[in-house]
This record gives sequence, C-alpha cells and structure tokens, in this order.
Amino acid sequence: MPRRTATQLRSLRITPHYLEHPEGSVLIELGSTKVICTASIDEKVPPWLMNKGQGWVTAEYDMLPRATNTRRQRDSHKGQINGRTQEISRLIGRGLRAVVDMRELGERTVSIDCDVIQADGGTRTASLTGGYVALALAVRWLQEEGKLKQNPLRDTVCAISVGVIDGTPQLDLDYTMDARADVDMNVVMTGAGHLVEVQGTAEGNPFSKTQLDTMLEYALQSLPIITDVQRRAVEVKLGASGTTIEAK
Amino acid sequence: MPRRTATQLRSLRITPHYLEHPEGSVLIELGSTKVICTASIDEKVPPWLMNKGQGWVTAEYDMLPRATNTRRQRDSHKGQINGRTQEISRLIGRGLRAVVDMRELGERTVSIDCDVIQADGGTRTASLTGGYVALALAVRWLQEEGKLKQNPLRDTVCAISVGVIDGTPQLDLDYTMDARADVDMNVVMTGAGHLVEVQGTAEGNPFSKTQLDTMLEYALQSLPIITDVQRRAVEVKLGASGTTIEAK
Amino acid sequence: MPRRTATQLRSLRITPHYLEHPEGSVLIELGSTKVICTASIDEKVPPWLMNKGQGWVTAEYDMLPRATNTRRQRDSHKGQINGRTQEISRLIGRGLRAVVDMRELGERTVSIDCDVIQADGGTRTASLTGGYVALALAVRWLQEEGKLKQNPLRDTVCAISVGVIDGTPQLDLDYTMDARADVDMNVVMTGAGHLVEVQGTAEGNPFSKTQLDTMLEYALQSLPIITDVQRRAVEVKLGASGTTIEAK
Amino acid sequence: MPRRTATQLRSLRITPHYLEHPEGSVLIELGSTKVICTASIDEKVPPWLMNKGQGWVTAEYDMLPRATNTRRQRDSHKGQINGRTQEISRLIGRGLRAVVDMRELGERTVSIDCDVIQADGGTRTASLTGGYVALALAVRWLQEEGKLKQNPLRDTVCAISVGVIDGTPQLDLDYTMDARADVDMNVVMTGAGHLVEVQGTAEGNPFSKTQLDTMLEYALQSLPIITDVQRRAVEVKLGASGTTIEAK
Amino acid sequence: MPRRTATQLRSLRITPHYLEHPEGSVLIELGSTKVICTASIDEKVPPWLMNKGQGWVTAEYDMLPRATNTRRQRDSHKGQINGRTQEISRLIGRGLRAVVDMRELGERTVSIDCDVIQADGGTRTASLTGGYVALALAVRWLQEEGKLKQNPLRDTVCAISVGVIDGTPQLDLDYTMDARADVDMNVVMTGAGHLVEVQGTAEGNPFSKTQLDTMLEYALQSLPIITDVQRRAVEVKLGASGTTIEAK
Amino acid sequence: MPRRTATQLRSLRITPHYLEHPEGSVLIELGSTKVICTASIDEKVPPWLMNKGQGWVTAEYDMLPRATNTRRQRDSHKGQINGRTQEISRLIGRGLRAVVDMRELGERTVSIDCDVIQADGGTRTASLTGGYVALALAVRWLQEEGKLKQNPLRDTVCAISVGVIDGTPQLDLDYTMDARADVDMNVVMTGAGHLVEVQGTAEGNPFSKTQLDTMLEYALQSLPIITDVQRRAVEVKLGASGTTIEAK
Repeated sequence: MPRRTATQLRSLRITPHYLEHPEGSVLIELGSTKVICTASIDEKVPPWLMNKGQGWVTAEYDMLPRATNTRRQRDSHKGQINGRTQEISRLIGRGLRAVVDMRELGERTVSIDCDVIQADGGTRTASLTGGYVALALAVRWLQEEGKLKQNPLRDTVCAISVGVIDGTPQLDLDYTMDARADVDMNVVMTGAGHLVEVQGTAEGNPFSKTQLDTMLEYALQSLPIITDVQRRAVEVKLGASGTTIEAK
Repeated sequence: MPRRTATQLRSLRITPHYLEHPEGSVLIELGSTKVICTASIDEKVPPWLMNKGQGWVTAEYDMLPRATNTRRQRDSHKGQINGRTQEISRLIGRGLRAVVDMRELGERTVSIDCDVIQADGGTRTASLTGGYVALALAVRWLQEEGKLKQNPLRDTVCAISVGVIDGTPQLDLDYTMDARADVDMNVVMTGAGHLVEVQGTAEGNPFSKTQLDTMLEYALQSLPIITDVQRRAVEVKLGASGTTIEAK
Repeated sequence: MPRRTATQLRSLRITPHYLEHPEGSVLIELGSTKVICTASIDEKVPPWLMNKGQGWVTAEYDMLPRATNTRRQRDSHKGQINGRTQEISRLIGRGLRAVVDMRELGERTVSIDCDVIQADGGTRTASLTGGYVALALAVRWLQEEGKLKQNPLRDTVCAISVGVIDGTPQLDLDYTMDARADVDMNVVMTGAGHLVEVQGTAEGNPFSKTQLDTMLEYALQSLPIITDVQRRAVEVKLGASGTTIEAK
Repeated sequence: MPRRTATQLRSLRITPHYLEHPEGSVLIELGSTKVICTASIDEKVPPWLMNKGQGWVTAEYDMLPRATNTRRQRDSHKGQINGRTQEISRLIGRGLRAVVDMRELGERTVSIDCDVIQADGGTRTASLTGGYVALALAVRWLQEEGKLKQNPLRDTVCAISVGVIDGTPQLDLDYTMDARADVDMNVVMTGAGHLVEVQGTAEGNPFSKTQLDTMLEYALQSLPIITDVQRRAVEVKLGASGTTIEAK
Repeated sequence: MPRRTATQLRSLRITPHYLEHPEGSVLIELGSTKVICTASIDEKVPPWLMNKGQGWVTAEYDMLPRATNTRRQRDSHKGQINGRTQEISRLIGRGLRAVVDMRELGERTVSIDCDVIQADGGTRTASLTGGYVALALAVRWLQEEGKLKQNPLRDTVCAISVGVIDGTPQLDLDYTMDARADVDMNVVMTGAGHLVEVQGTAEGNPFSKTQLDTMLEYALQSLPIITDVQRRAVEVKLGASGTTIEAK
Repeated sequence: MPRRTATQLRSLRITPHYLEHPEGSVLIELGSTKVICTASIDEKVPPWLMNKGQGWVTAEYDMLPRATNTRRQRDSHKGQINGRTQEISRLIGRGLRAVVDMRELGERTVSIDCDVIQADGGTRTASLTGGYVALALAVRWLQEEGKLKQNPLRDTVCAISVGVIDGTPQLDLDYTMDARADVDMNVVMTGAGHLVEVQGTAEGNPFSKTQLDTMLEYALQSLPIITDVQRRAVEVKLGASGTTIEAK
C-alpha cells in the first residue's frame, strides 16, 4: 500500500439509514475508525429553554469497551463520566449547533449519539462529521412527516484532524501517527469554509504560528471531499438501506 | 412474508472477526436484533481468585441509547447501572462459565462485552449465543499464540427465548410478540442438550407445568440449528473477515 | 436432630404485626433465616402510571451488614446498589404484582421492604413469602379504613427454593446445602398452584429435564403448607401482636 | 398508664446474643425504640493504622426504611449517605472508642452496626448503649477464643437523651416529646460518671446555663440504671439466647 | 510573641463586602484561619416549605484542597460528601436559623457558603461567626432594596471553640493546640448570651462536669468581643470595600 | 474610566506566597477576576508512572459557589464533576506540563489547585497564568530544600483570552464582553512565544482565517507583559508575604 501523502484523507465511507429505529442514523468509516451516529428526536426542550420558541441539539460520544486495543472500563461501572468523553461530547454538540437555526427547528430536541465501534484515530472528528449526516437525515424525516416547513440547517458542518509529526504537518492522523505527533489539531468547518472550532494542542514540543497556518490549510483542503460525501449521504432514500457513500 | 410457525427461529447470522482489536469478536443478528460481542483477554484474575491456578470469565451487557424505539439515557449519565442491565450481564456470565474449565483456562480473565446495536426482542439470548462464539474465537487465538495447550471449553452453550402468547407457546419472540406475551422464558443450553439456566416469568397470567414443558421442548428443538451456526462461525479463519455464517 | 428428608420444609414461622408503624409487617423465619417484611402505603403512583386509574406494588430487598457469616459493606457506602440485591428486589416485585388487580388497588403504591436480619439460605424466597403477608395485611388495613371496597388480591403467592446436591434433589436449601448444590432453583407459585416464576441455575454441572421436573414437583408439594401459614398469619388481629403462626 | 416523671427512663431491655453470626449482637429496646446492634471482628486495621500495633473501633448507624412513621428512601438508592446518618455513626464510633485501649485490642477492627428496626425517639443513644454491649460481647468472645489476654475495655459507656419541653427538662424523650422539645441534648457517659460527649441543641428557643445544668443532672441520674442493664447483659452466657435483661 | 492566656481570643478580623457578586460576603480571619463566607438570596424555598409563608436559611461548609498542611482530595472527585463536612454544614445552618424569624424573612432562601481558604483550628466556629455577618449583610441588602420591611434577625449569633489541654481549659484552640487537646468543645451563643448549641467531645480522656463549666464560662467571656466585631462589620457601608474590622 | 483598547490587558496583579501551607501559592487578579492558585508537592507519582524515573504535574480548577453572579451548586453535592470544570482542569494541566522536564522533576507529583474566588471572564487563562507561578514557587522551594538540583522548568507559560465582538477582535474579555462575543479563543503560550494550545470556538457566527490571525496576534502582543509579571512574582522572597506584583 503506498503511503498516504501529507494532505491525503484516509478512505471515507458513510452508510446512511444504518439502523431501523432512529430518525437519522449512519455508520461512518474513516480508515479503520468506525462510528455509529444516531439522531433521536424528542418533542421537548430542556427546562431552561422552555417556552422560548426554539429547539436544541445535544450530543453524546462514547466508545464500546473494546473499540481500542486494550479494553477500557465502562463509565457506568465507575459511576463517573470520563473527562475526555464529556469534552468530546461538548465539542460535537457545539459544532453541530453552529449550523442549526434553533427557531426554525422549533421546540424539540435532537440528541446525537456517537458510539465508536472501532477506534484508529480521528474518532471525535469522524463522530462530528457522521453526526451531522444523522442530524440532517432526522431533519429530512421531520420535513417528510410534515413537522417542519423550513430546513433549519443553514449549512453543513464537518471536522478533521491534522497534526505535526517529526516537524512535518500531516492530515487525518491514524492511531499510530497520533501517538507520535507533537501537535494534534481538530478543525470544525462549515461547508462554506468558515471556522467553527479550532483546537490545537502541543503534545510534545510547542508549535509555531507557521505550523498552525499549514495545519489549517491542510484541513481546509479536505473540506470539499468530506462535504461531498456528507451531501450525497443525506440524499440517500430511506428504502436504500445498505447503500454506502464513498469519497470519489 | 409468511408468518413464522410456533417452533421456527428467526433468521440467525453470525459474522466472526467483526472487529480488529479484540481477541474474539462477532456481530450476531437474530431477525432485526443486532449485537456486537467481543472477548478481551487480560492476563490477570480478580483479587479473590489470585494464586488459585484458575481463570475467570465475566460478561457485560449494554445497549446503545438508540438501539430501541425510544432513546434511553446512558447509565453513565445516571451514575448508576440499570438493574435490568446488571441482571442480564450476570446471566450471560454464568451461562458462559458453565462450559469453561477454569483450571485449563489458566490465570487469566476473558471479558465478554455484548453491546446491542439494534433491539427487536431476544437481545439477552442473542448476546449469550454470540458471546460464546467471541469467547471460543479468543480461546482459539490463545491456542494459536501458544498460550494454551488444552481447549478449556468443555462444550458449546447458547440461549433462546420462548413465550406464551394468547395461550399458545411461541419460539424466539420479537419485540411485538414479547410485548403481548403472558409468559417470557429464557433457556440456556449446552450443545449436548443439558440445561444451564431456565428463567420463566409470568408477565400477565401465571402459567401451568404443561406450558412450561412445551416451552422447554420448543427451546430444545432449536438447539441443533443454533449450535451449528456457532460451530461454523468459530471455524472461520481470521483472514476471512466479512464472512457471515447463516442457519441452513 | 434427625436429618430433613428431601421434600421436607425447614420450620416456618410468621409473626404478623411485627412493627408498629407500617400498614403491614411480619417477621418471617425459615429455619435460621429471618426477614422483616413491611408494606408501606403511599397514596401516589410513579410518574409513568399517573392518571391511569391503577396502582403499583414495588419491592426492595436488602441485608443487614452482618446478616451473613462475614460482614458485608453497605451498598450506601459503595454508592452503587449491588447487582444481586437489585435482581432479588425485581423478582419479589414481579412475584407480588402477579396476584394484584392494579385497578382494584386504585391509584396508590404499596412498597414492600424485605430486610434480612439473619441469613441461612432461602432469603429471597422467604422475603417473597413474607412480603405477600405484609402486603395482604396492608390491604386489610386499607379495607378496614374504608379506603378499599374490593380486595385487589386475586390469590396468594409464595416462593421456595429447591436444589440438586450430589445428583439428588432437595427442597429448601440452607446455606450449607446451597454452597454444595449443583443446581439452585427458585419457584414462585400462586395459592392455586400456578407458576409465576421459575429460575433454575446450574452452579456446577448442567442439569437434565428430569431433574427440573423433580425439583418443580418438590416445590409444588410444599405449596399447601406455606400457603396455610400465610393465610392464618393474614387473619391475625392487629391487637394480637406477638402471635406467631407456625406450619402445622 | 401513669405519665413518666421528668427523671424517669422508659422501659429498657437488652437481649444479648440476638443473632447467630456476629461475634457480638444485641437487640436493645428503649420504650418502643428497637435497635439491632452487632459487633464484627476483622483481623485487619484501616490503611492509616497499619503496623502501629493498635486496633480500631468503628460504627455505622442506619434505619430500616419503615422504622419511622413514613417510609424513608434507602441511602443506597440515592447514591449518597444521608448527613444525619453519618453524623450519628461518627458520634457512636467516637463514644465507643473513648473506653477502648487500642493497644490492648491489638491490630484488629471491631465494626459496630446499629440498625434501627423501630424508631420512637432516642435511637442514637440506644444505639450507642446497645453498641457497647455488642462490643463487650465480641471482646469476651476474643478472650474465650484466646485471641486477647487483657480486656481492652477500660470502662463501660452509654448514652441518653434529655430535653426541655415547654421550659421543663425531661429525661429520655420519645418521638412525640422530641417533636415538641425546645432543646434536645445527648449525653455520652462512662460507667464512672465521666463525660465523653455532650451535644445540646436548641431546636426552638436558645437555652440557659441553668437548663443545661439540670439536663446534665438528669442524664447522670440515669447512668447507674443503664450501666447495670449493660453489665448484666454482657454476663449472659452464649447458650442462653432468648434471655432478655431489663432495668430493675 | 507573648503566649496567649487561657481566656484570650486570637486576633479576630472581619472584612465585609469582600466579594462583588454575593448579596452578603465577608472574609473572616481568626489567627491564621481564614474563611470566605457568602450569603446568596434565592427567591424560592425548598419544596417542603412551599406556600407556608416562611423562608429558609441553609449553609454549606467546605475547604480548599490545600487549606490544610497536607492536600485533601476534593469531595467532588470522590463522588461523596465527606461526613465531617456535612456535619459542620448542618451545625452552621442550625446555629444561624436560631436567630432568624422565618415568617419575617418571607418565602426566600438565604444560602450561606463558608469556604476555608486557610485552616489553623476553629474553622467551623469562624465560619458560623462570619456566616452570621454575611447573612446580616444580605438582610440589609434586602431591606435597602425594599424587599423586606422588618429585620428578620432577632439577635446576633456567633461561635467559639474551647478545649482542655493537659488538664487545663483554653479558649480558641489553634491547630497545634487542637491536636493535643483532651476535650474539644464548640459553643454557639446568641448576642444576648443564650446557648444555641453546645458540643463537647472527649478526644482523649473523658471530662468532668467542672471542666465543662469552666469551658462554658470561657466561651461566654469571649462573647462580647466577638459580637462587637460582628456588629461593627454589619454596619460598614457597601462602598467601603477593603475596610477590615478588628477586635478592640 | 476610559474604555480599554482592543489590545489592552485588564489590570493584572499577582500576590505570591498568598497562603501559609502550600509549597507554592498565589492570588492572581485579572480585572475583577480573582483566583487562588496553589501548588502541592507529593513525593509519589500516579500508578501508571511508577518506577519510570519521572514526575507528574496535574491541575484541578473549581469555583466557589458564589464566584459568579448567581449561585452554582457544588459538584460534590451533585455527585458528578461538571464537564466544563473537568475540561478546564485538563487544559491547565496540559499547558503547565508543556514547560516541565519530567525527568528533572523526579518521581514526585505537583498538584495545582485553581479555585476561582470571583469570576469576571478569563478565569481559565488567569488560572493557568497563576498556576504557573505557584508551580515555579514550589519548584524554588524544592531547590531551596535541596530536593532538586536542576530547575525542571524549561520556560514560563501563560494564557490569555481573545474574542470577536460585533466583528471586532478584542483582547482579554470580561464577563460582559464574553456574553456578547461571537468567537471566544484561549491561547496558551510559552515565554519564548511558542504556542502550546489554541482553542477558538464560534459561539455565534463562524469565523474566518483572517479573524483567527488577528486574535492570535493580539494574544502574542500581551505575552511580554504577562510574562514579566510572572517572572517578578516568582522572585519574591518567602518572607515578603503581602507583596503584590502588578503589570508595569
């Protein structure tokens, strides 16, 4: 297998309508990383939003215990939610809310659940990217059911990771790369190319503004590819379960 | 679609080597019910078994929040493990341990994780049936790695549900049947046809000894079919990922 | 002391009106096993039953820390309810609900608390048997207070354990027997001899259908004796505290 | 029934060897208040006492859910120990430790469990008084087993409540009195008449030094009666289960 | 530095209006002990007080992890509130409520938070003393805002510790003294000299009535000094932040 | 008061040796935001670092309940650590570790506690900036005690927030600004001007690369001022408690 170039995405595949029960659901695969994302509609809003004429979108991220190379104890068995888990859940929720017109959504909550089945780096960005498709499928369902007149989604949103390894920037780190990276950055972007969230962290040595610029550039270059897969996945008809959309 | 007969199993499919990381893993599908079962080996035993020259097998069962028709809050968010979840985990662990020679297994723990991806009745019995295959694959891996000389599995083990609906016994209840059933019974059986666990519960009206006998008979009739799928799944080579074994 | 025969119950004693505050209460003694069972009436139903014109019966089982031979840490100190404790609480609740007409009970909850004071095997079945008497005493109190016109209890319900030791079935296992048993079965039965719950578990070797039949037969043989003690205990007048009913 | 005088104790009864398993156990009854107290010996000390050549005594107090007039949710179901429960447990532990020579006790822990079966005021003082007897019985057991040469108990210890109702001091408040009391005081005293703990709290109006003095005087007057019951209870032989010691 | 006499208070300083956000706040310093006390007004009462025409005052006490000489794990990280922490919170709440006319306060809750910044003995009594000033400042704020017509405070309230060291009573123990003390007593007193709470505990040897009397006498002697600082602190105008009131 | 310019920092003050017990401690004030930062040394490392010849630095961030305008319930009372709290604690820990040579630190843990006394925006960046000074003071203490030969700090580290309000970038947002900001960014920088962490989040509208560049530029312009205050604070002698260092 030829080595990926610095700006090359791993194979990206989205299978919409992956499950029967949720209003929206996908399996997203990014290289060996696999995440099930579902969107559940609840015709209620949290207490602090009641009677304000607007909706809410929230997200929860978790991993199956053996998604990773060594088994990880379930949070429910520790009686505490893991800090990393909560931090990622909050990132996904914020990212998705950035493209939703909450007044158009109406007084309902869409809960996005991202459960990592197999982890090989990039689980949080794949979750956000897949979570958007699940959200959009649930919105389409609301429209088809006649519960929504306008589409409350103002744009698409997706995310990708970039890093610096041995001084060289690299797009879309897998687990082995991530473990060696000096810098790990996650970029959340709208389809129009605006930034929603930029989180760059030095794991080893601090980084320079120039490296930050290159990383952002790489992330933005991958945007059209990811957005195209998302858009085609959202258009798959409900009956067509089993259809998998791949990057061209 | 012709209606199933009273003694007919739903379509049963097992995909071995479903995930990359675990020592054993399967996707088991029973009708629309889908469960990912993994087996993780830890070269340690719980404190109360230390230095006794024997191993341990434990199991944890859980559901993705949207495996069911309405979204269910994660246990980790409630800070308490659900009673039903624990009860099923205990049932699966007991059932699997019944066919394991713990001395032959040696001082290691095999943790079976059963995560329901999609629920349509029979999730606990499918989990045990799939959990056995994950366990057997992990045992095969231990043997191939030269860590085990003897096979510690004395027999296969599987489970199936039976119920009574409107006075008539029915094998393998799906969710709609289960909701209408007067009696719900789970039978855990070894490949040799011995009973490991029998749990029959009247949900509505109490039941008679005669009904109990018919339910047990139906369960035992399904044993050769389930056992055959399990045995063929265990034999699938590691490279052959993507192979799905179905009931003949 | 002559050894008990295979079908012989240990001494069974029920002291009704054991405590002053609860609407119904008993001390049940089965051999050395002692359980305090209380029934508390709350003129409310759980949220999911509101305005449905029906009542609810729930049960909680627990042990004093030193009911057993070695001290057991309180669940409240671990911040988690023990899995076994929850499983037994659920069994008792289901068993009692099987004989209650929830519409006749009206919009109120009866909470049954079973606290084991001293454990010597059979604590869950003694709890259910005593819990029924506490429930029936509370129902009688509701009738005497004019809060209930019809008796919502459609039958009596009780439970007993049976096991297989060294290949031989034995009724009503005490702790020493239980520790040696290959199979442990709990049978919940109505006064009319119908089955409400059958839970048979192989602790060691799997068991045969023939052994299951013998165990069920032994359990059903003990039903008239247990039911008679329950019926006489329910008839004891409130003033007669200190009266203990024994099996004839 | 003639009204109790201001300095009169309610009927006090202690049944030693109340349970079979614990090294020491009693049922203590003070009027309608009933508490089971057990003493459990563990041949270990807490981590912070290891290798210091001394032992430890700890206590836990709890109530059955329906010991009181309205049912109280179990702490284990709330996932938090109640503040009042912890405060009383700490009081009992401190009080008992005041008469124990920890070096003589040796590197072992005695855990005292006080579980209130029926509450009618004075549950914490009855628990401490009964807890001492359970502790002393466990110490006697250690001596009889040859595990202790010297008696590590330097004195007896007991407790009683006193209050002020409508300006008038009253010994040993029952629940009805307690609810009306302006001041509630608990006094922990050694057999020699020394004070171990004095806790006086104004529930309504603050109190004067004179009232404090009268309350203390009443408490100390009850000391010989309580101490005598404790001493006779400790002397009851193990075989004599069922023997109840009453105040003369 | 000359040694303090047996009846001498450490330097006592109260800085009112210490923080910007709370309705009342102080920094109280007693020797090296420093506590931030705040009073927060919530225009609601707890569920069990609703529609009864009265208010509520509650208190919470805690320590920064490094207020003491060795770092203490945060309760939030243990998932359980420390028993000592709860016990002190309850003491402070009871003490403050003793001087509040709840009907005059109206249907609102005042929450007092006492967070120990630096501990050197006497943290609970300093918290109560400072907590009263925060409460009184919040009450003054309510009056100035026109939300209260009458002052609901019927008196001032404060607290001080006294102990017995090597047989000699000593007022206001610092940490070093406290560690050596045989008896540790906390006295909560109203400005008028009435007792609200007396908690005396033998840490080592039991104590006599005579020692109790001396300790109480010492505590009451310090009352005018503490009360004077409290009264002057309450009078400081809001603009005058930075003003510190000291004992004369 | 003249309005701050877009690149102007609020008044920054650091009081080193703020508390007596910790090995390092400061009060940091940034405008009205006040945080107590302490550094506690423990001569142990976490289990996963044992015997690897290196140390660890960890951080915990929390707020007093009334640091903000409305009272916030303590995490310890909810039995769960708040997601935001954990996320900030992790940010501070990562940022500080970026400048520590863990081998030079040796097998010990430095725990940084940042407790916000008063919040007016920028609490997480002030906590990191003050946390560094506490850490450096603790390191100096280790050196003065002869426990460290080399200084394990490779550089200083600090943090500042920047935002976009109505399309205009602004350095160092206070609470009012933060509530109106479209973008909120936190920048963690070393004294040498390298980036350790960049977290930019669109709260309202997404942002452009140009806006990101301006925000970063503003943050880096404030670096010399903050670093200078940190350096001077670290040099203050232990005896000089009460000395406050301000930006020139």
